[in-house]
Amino acid sequence: MADIPYKIYLTEDEMPREWYNLRADMINKPAPLLNPDTHQPMTAADLEPVFCSELIKQELDNDTAYIKIPDEVYNFYKMYRPSPLVRAYCLEKELGTPAKIYYKFEGNNTSGSHKLNSAIAQAYYAKKQGLKGVTTETGAGQWGTALSMACAYLGLDCRVYMVKVSYEQKPFRREVMRTYGANVTPSPSDTTEIGRKILEAHPGTTGSLGCAISEAVEAAVSTPGYRYVLGSVLNQVLLHQSIIGLETEAALKKYDIKPDMVIGCAGGGSNLGGLIAPFMRDKIKGKLDCRIIAVEPASCPSFTRGRFAYDFADTGRVCPLAKMYTLGSDFIPAPNHAGGLRYHGMSTVLSQLYDDGHMEAVSVPQTEVFKAAERFARSEGILPAPESSHAIKVAMDEALKCKETGEEKTIVFGLTGTGYFDLVAYQKYNDGVMDDYVPTDEEIEQSLSKLPVID
Amino acid sequence: MADIPYKIYLTEDEMPREWYNLRADMINKPAPLLNPDTHQPMTAADLEPVFCSELIKQELDNDTAYIKIPDEVYNFYKMYRPSPLVRAYCLEKELGTPAKIYYKFEGNNTSGSHKLNSAIAQAYYAKKQGLKGVTTETGAGQWGTALSMACAYLGLDCRVYMVKVSYEQKPFRREVMRTYGANVTPSPSDTTEIGRKILEAHPGTTGSLGCAISEAVEAAVSTPGYRYVLGSVLNQVLLHQSIIGLETEAALKKYDIKPDMVIGCAGGGSNLGGLIAPFMRDKIKGKLDCRIIAVEPASCPSFTRGRFAYDFADTGRVCPLAKMYTLGSDFIPAPNHAGGLRYHGMSTVLSQLYDDGHMEAVSVPQTEVFKAAERFARSEGILPAPESSHAIKVAMDEALKCKETGEEKTIVFGLTGTGYFDLVAYQKYNDGVMDDYVPTDEEIEQSLSKLPVID
Repeated sequence: MADIPYKIYLTEDEMPREWYNLRADMINKPAPLLNPDTHQPMTAADLEPVFCSELIKQELDNDTAYIKIPDEVYNFYKMYRPSPLVRAYCLEKELGTPAKIYYKFEGNNTSGSHKLNSAIAQAYYAKKQGLKGVTTETGAGQWGTALSMACAYLGLDCRVYMVKVSYEQKPFRREVMRTYGANVTPSPSDTTEIGRKILEAHPGTTGSLGCAISEAVEAAVSTPGYRYVLGSVLNQVLLHQSIIGLETEAALKKYDIKPDMVIGCAGGGSNLGGLIAPFMRDKIKGKLDCRIIAVEPASCPSFTRGRFAYDFADTGRVCPLAKMYTLGSDFIPAPNHAGGLRYHGMSTVLSQLYDDGHMEAVSVPQTEVFKAAERFARSEGILPAPESSHAIKVAMDEALKCKETGEEKTIVFGLTGTGYFDLVAYQKYNDGVMDDYVPTDEEIEQSLSKLPVID
Repeated sequence: MADIPYKIYLTEDEMPREWYNLRADMINKPAPLLNPDTHQPMTAADLEPVFCSELIKQELDNDTAYIKIPDEVYNFYKMYRPSPLVRAYCLEKELGTPAKIYYKFEGNNTSGSHKLNSAIAQAYYAKKQGLKGVTTETGAGQWGTALSMACAYLGLDCRVYMVKVSYEQKPFRREVMRTYGANVTPSPSDTTEIGRKILEAHPGTTGSLGCAISEAVEAAVSTPGYRYVLGSVLNQVLLHQSIIGLETEAALKKYDIKPDMVIGCAGGGSNLGGLIAPFMRDKIKGKLDCRIIAVEPASCPSFTRGRFAYDFADTGRVCPLAKMYTLGSDFIPAPNHAGGLRYHGMSTVLSQLYDDGHMEAVSVPQTEVFKAAERFARSEGILPAPESSHAIKVAMDEALKCKETGEEKTIVFGLTGTGYFDLVAYQKYNDGVMDDYVPTDEEIEQSLSKLPVID
């Protein structure tokens, strides 16, 4: 066996040619999306005005295990993939642990995160369908940036509704999107009916993700030749993100490595669902004995303190109902700098797997997360995104447990992106003024009391 | 011959184990640095109070062609190297050119640029000498960030004097450095004698690189256990940066590719000198027929409009005199967003090679540079640093010439870094308010009239 290098790169030939659809191997399938009016399962026809046709097929397909990556998407992937699986030798030394730590680094592209894996797929299917453009919303900005890049590459129009507070506080994210030719509108805006209504009701509002979703959906359905696309939560997104897990699996196999645990951060579930897909498959089939751990912020603890129930996917309540771990669609997370993890719900796939006991979840407070991020940055030379740093924190905790027990466990975690656009948060941490608000039981109960009643 | 992949990666085993010192193969050696008071060549003893001993040896060594990369530096390199040599298939398609374009991408590390290659080397020698810390200055912030990362890794104290206007306008750069534990001081400051003098004379000043250099040097020589380090211009820096060229050469050889031209941006010369080193060696020896092109901003045209003469290396005139292409140490470049290219002089090595006719130079206006950057970003998916975009602009121009002539030339250029921290500049370009100031002949003559007189 050759020495394990610092970075395990697959060759382009070794890159997976198919996405893997974990739903095909789930014993209990994720519950179907429901029509918010009739409470009946959403059909392809129901979804047609909003989503691209091929993506609807993927969304509803619980049976096909492997789906070919289209050539054009595959070629785009080759601009920034395969991404490295890094052996964290320097972090291991810093921690003094006998554990072997690996991380799959998805930040080596200009969007700065794994979001590009699904953005190019969704943009491709929109282009193939002959559409003129797509609409979406963005909060932290990673998804909007990724979609702008994908649309620029394919010559597709891209309209991004950016939560107004982010639009104003993150001008650099906005400029990257503009450089990629996207039309970026602060939300709420006067370009949609729902936006105008909200502005009238709340003149000074700085917006929310829920409102931006509603505006983006309205813009898509009311503009001929446009559809709406979404960067997380949906089954199709987890399907595209399976490239992360498949590459990780292939890289580990090259060196005959079996993970003892796979750790990822969880917001809507796009990165986690992609990273764990092949490992969960083997675990379900009894072929792999491996802990799978979702890490969420203590300020937005869907798995660890939420309820498994049907809920609205958006605050505006225009989207289908999804059965998921949720804090209630009215839940407003405290200001948390990991913007990508501030979602009240969770992927239906991951929710079902968690409910079935196939994975664990843990929540961590923000200051601890940044402390881990700083230590990681100083030893591994990568400035991590706050979202990713949730996984770093728990991976480090597990490695330190190994230090106590002397166990040489193999820990694999997902490093979803870089923190170049999160330096306001790092500054708060550096200045010692970061807050660690955790919602009270009453707050969560209050929000959960408004869950929709499904017969 | 296998198909050429999108990204040619060397394995860690194939990574060069030695730096290459181009001076050893130069027919006319670069002129020695002179003591600013006596005008005699600087000796090792003269440099001892300012620089680390091992780095002085490298600075003065015009004879040793290959110098072993210390193991600790080599291991650090493995965290982010080998860097990819990318075949720009998508850019070729976008341009419709028969040319084959390759770029060596040095932006895949948190410092965002090639600067880390020399930062870790310089920090290593400081640590090995038993020093407590190092001082430096930074303008655009890439060098300061790289040095902070290297010092954090080695447990060395790092004091950065950051030009005050950058300190205030680039708070994110500052925060990255702080996250890596560096002490960042806006310059001019009251922590040094020269800083206090300048503040007294010019109360409202926002500083300059020249002033920051003077403060950093003073802080180094007046603090026991500290030395001063510099990120460009010096021979030692070009030596460390040769890793870029050596890797590029090895990657090209793997696929039996010979470059017809090698293009790089030129500020102080660190990236260009590193990239071209092995190609220039072969060119000097008559083994390679290849154009080598330096690209500089029209706003700061040292090669194309400067004079080859001894000049002060810093505005404060405390550093040794260097024989180089210079615009005069009093030359104040117009605000140009490629902060890394705003230096009045140029590496003595590159100056000599240019004067001997071994390389060409071209200057390009800023708006054209950003236009090229945008087109590159949209087709290749990487948001380039403004500095790097100078090389992109000329590579694209050459590729378009091939489109006219039908020649299938092989163009290699250096993509030194990413533009994540340059979005104020991109915003100006997006908003159409970017300026293209070019100095008048009178301005340059005025500044050159103050060159020191050497007997």
